[in-house]
Amino acid sequence: MTPDTRPPAGPLDAAASRASWVEVEHDHPFGIRTLPYGSFTTPDAPGARVGVAIGEHILDLTAAAGALLPEHAGLFTAGSLDRLLAAGPTVWSQVRSRVMRWLADERYRRAVEPLLVPAATATPRLPFTVADYVDFYASEHHATNLGRILRPDGDPLTPNWKHLPIGYHGRSGTMVVSGTPVVRPRGQLRAPGSEITFAPTARLDIEAEVGFVVGTPSRPGRPVPLAETERHVFGVCLVNDWSARDIQAWEYVPLGPFLGKSFATSVSAWIVPLDALRHARVPAPPRDPRPLPYLDDTGAPPGGFDIELEISLNRHLLSRPPFAGMYWTVAQQLAHLTVNGASLRTGDLLASGTVSGPTRAQCGSLIELTWNGTQPLTLPDGSTRDFLEDGDEVVITGTAPGPDATVIGLGEVRARILPSAP
Amino acid sequence: MTPDTRPPAGPLDAAASRASWVEVEHDHPFGIRTLPYGSFTTPDAPGARVGVAIGEHILDLTAAAGALLPEHAGLFTAGSLDRLLAAGPTVWSQVRSRVMRWLADERYRRAVEPLLVPAATATPRLPFTVADYVDFYASEHHATNLGRILRPDGDPLTPNWKHLPIGYHGRSGTMVVSGTPVVRPRGQLRAPGSEITFAPTARLDIEAEVGFVVGTPSRPGRPVPLAETERHVFGVCLVNDWSARDIQAWEYVPLGPFLGKSFATSVSAWIVPLDALRHARVPAPPRDPRPLPYLDDTGAPPGGFDIELEISLNRHLLSRPPFAGMYWTVAQQLAHLTVNGASLRTGDLLASGTVSGPTRAQCGSLIELTWNGTQPLTLPDGSTRDFLEDGDEVVITGTAPGPDATVIGLGEVRARILPSAP
Repeated sequence: MTPDTRPPAGPLDAAASRASWVEVEHDHPFGIRTLPYGSFTTPDAPGARVGVAIGEHILDLTAAAGALLPEHAGLFTAGSLDRLLAAGPTVWSQVRSRVMRWLADERYRRAVEPLLVPAATATPRLPFTVADYVDFYASEHHATNLGRILRPDGDPLTPNWKHLPIGYHGRSGTMVVSGTPVVRPRGQLRAPGSEITFAPTARLDIEAEVGFVVGTPSRPGRPVPLAETERHVFGVCLVNDWSARDIQAWEYVPLGPFLGKSFATSVSAWIVPLDALRHARVPAPPRDPRPLPYLDDTGAPPGGFDIELEISLNRHLLSRPPFAGMYWTVAQQLAHLTVNGASLRTGDLLASGTVSGPTRAQCGSLIELTWNGTQPLTLPDGSTRDFLEDGDEVVITGTAPGPDATVIGLGEVRARILPSAP
Repeated sequence: MTPDTRPPAGPLDAAASRASWVEVEHDHPFGIRTLPYGSFTTPDAPGARVGVAIGEHILDLTAAAGALLPEHAGLFTAGSLDRLLAAGPTVWSQVRSRVMRWLADERYRRAVEPLLVPAATATPRLPFTVADYVDFYASEHHATNLGRILRPDGDPLTPNWKHLPIGYHGRSGTMVVSGTPVVRPRGQLRAPGSEITFAPTARLDIEAEVGFVVGTPSRPGRPVPLAETERHVFGVCLVNDWSARDIQAWEYVPLGPFLGKSFATSVSAWIVPLDALRHARVPAPPRDPRPLPYLDDTGAPPGGFDIELEISLNRHLLSRPPFAGMYWTVAQQLAHLTVNGASLRTGDLLASGTVSGPTRAQCGSLIELTWNGTQPLTLPDGSTRDFLEDGDEVVITGTAPGPDATVIGLGEVRARILPSAP
């Protein structure tokens, strides 16, 4: 299986890192500057393989590993990203720069082209083993909207909200990869003043989020300071944290969300390495009050990411949530998560919480877009939505600025809603 | 390594299943009727091994597997219980009955005795890979006490409490095995009306719980009915769900406990198979109101377990929480956890929540035993405690009735509190 990829003679053409010999459309989200990692199978080879997406192709790293990275030939044999995640930032850089060279330099073409798999023939798999899944609540606009909707007589934000990045642990075992259908969950429901019933949720919602995948673990008792985020975070994905608002409303006091969230959480198939988002870094919004020192990023390099999400429902654009405006950054979330001594494991997933901007057209959930169902949306087919209907297909995409006016794509997280089993 | 354990001629003595040729004190918690499983290392052999505890010895199953279970020789080679858990109830029964026969029948002694390791030389390891950790809140007495302490002007129980087993996901990555010291966590604290500070917790507490370990996974979208619990649950352990009450109080609204719990959760080293607790089954208390059908165990076999816990602090007995009185059973917890379509994975851990009985001497946490610190305990050395001090050692043990007036021990979960790092 090992291809002949001995380095051709002569230096790499300076232009080579800007384009690939693989044909990629100009505005394709997975150009040479993105190079995200995933896991896939094909009909002719049932074993899972690791790949890098380039345009409409996937470079099969499991087949290529011996030639790409002889000193780490076992990195991709298991067919998931787990070993790559655990290998740490030096190896991440090596792999990325070698893959970029292979795909950019025409002189590798003859050896590497046979390792390309048409993406259309591949079935994505969950790209890594999710260790602990933590879901945050980092958008001030989202938290404020939910406070206004759910607690109209109180302060929209709880007193702790601007002092710490609120989060909770979700269910790792029900993370599914983009494309997996989501069955409408059933559960106990109780509208205020009504009887308890057991029924399919009538308020199935989207939560459009950005997830950060931990590669390098941390030691117990050793908090991760803000400045060390990049030692630990491997990359970024898109997350749809499906929520059954009626199940959640009845169950969540006092210990938080449980069955209203645990039935499924969808993640995108392609993990974009943090390095691909270097040009997308932006300052987080000003914080007032200034947080405690372990969370205070005043004067630090920009901690935000200028990622724009798009949510579409049955191919109709619903909203464009801007991730750049999130109040709490992933660096602050990692620092907070570990400040009590808790350690990180390879495969931990930190999701941002619903991304919402200041306007209605920038909200990341239907409960906000329809103001708790009181202002239903009208779709192009004339139907209306307060929450999701069976058969609906939701697609969340994300893009960020790359170098030289290129676009870095985060791919998509897609799923169709299936009816509850009878 | 394979010992000569060909079956001796002749039937097993009828008395043999009641005693072992291994010397075990009459009241030892790990007699021939218990036979719990764990993972351990010894100084002379660094690799992890799986063992069964018998008195003050451990039968090394990793060494014995080829002879014990030739058709599943790989079951114990990885040194953790993961493969045994995944193998399902038929294999669980086979392994247990063969181990029991080996240890009961004198005729196996010559072959099996070399496989015994003195427990004193073994270092326990976390016995299985924890998949999702769910912590419930199933003691009515505990929930009522906490309601009275924390919400003195409201109903002690939230309106949902008697309709569903409240639970939330905890952090799997910080589960530690009994004997691992627990470092006092630091975090954001804010007493009502005070400034926010960052400091070591001043209210570090115990939560004495019983944990159920999932072996057989379930399929997504296929709820586990009450009657199928024993197909999925492999065994039982003890859990100390350490809690920093002050960190938790400031963070937990609206999404539940996070850093107040995530720094460490201790589990006992030995997992007692469910089969060993057959004689400990007791009816759960009457439920009023009757729960929805998927939770209604009226007429079902007894769903409770007559496990008595003991909590000691620095060798002084603090309390004896009775697990028999828990309002919600593990069968109900499994049914609830999966009713929305969520699946179970091998290694899921369902903890009961703090076990408290109706009297003060039966409470499973210091916040109850000292009534939120207002009634400190006096220890034999004259010192007092509201919450835990650095250097304190907490040991939780558990016992249950076995057949023929024997006692089934659940072993212990033990840890000493270390001061926060400077």
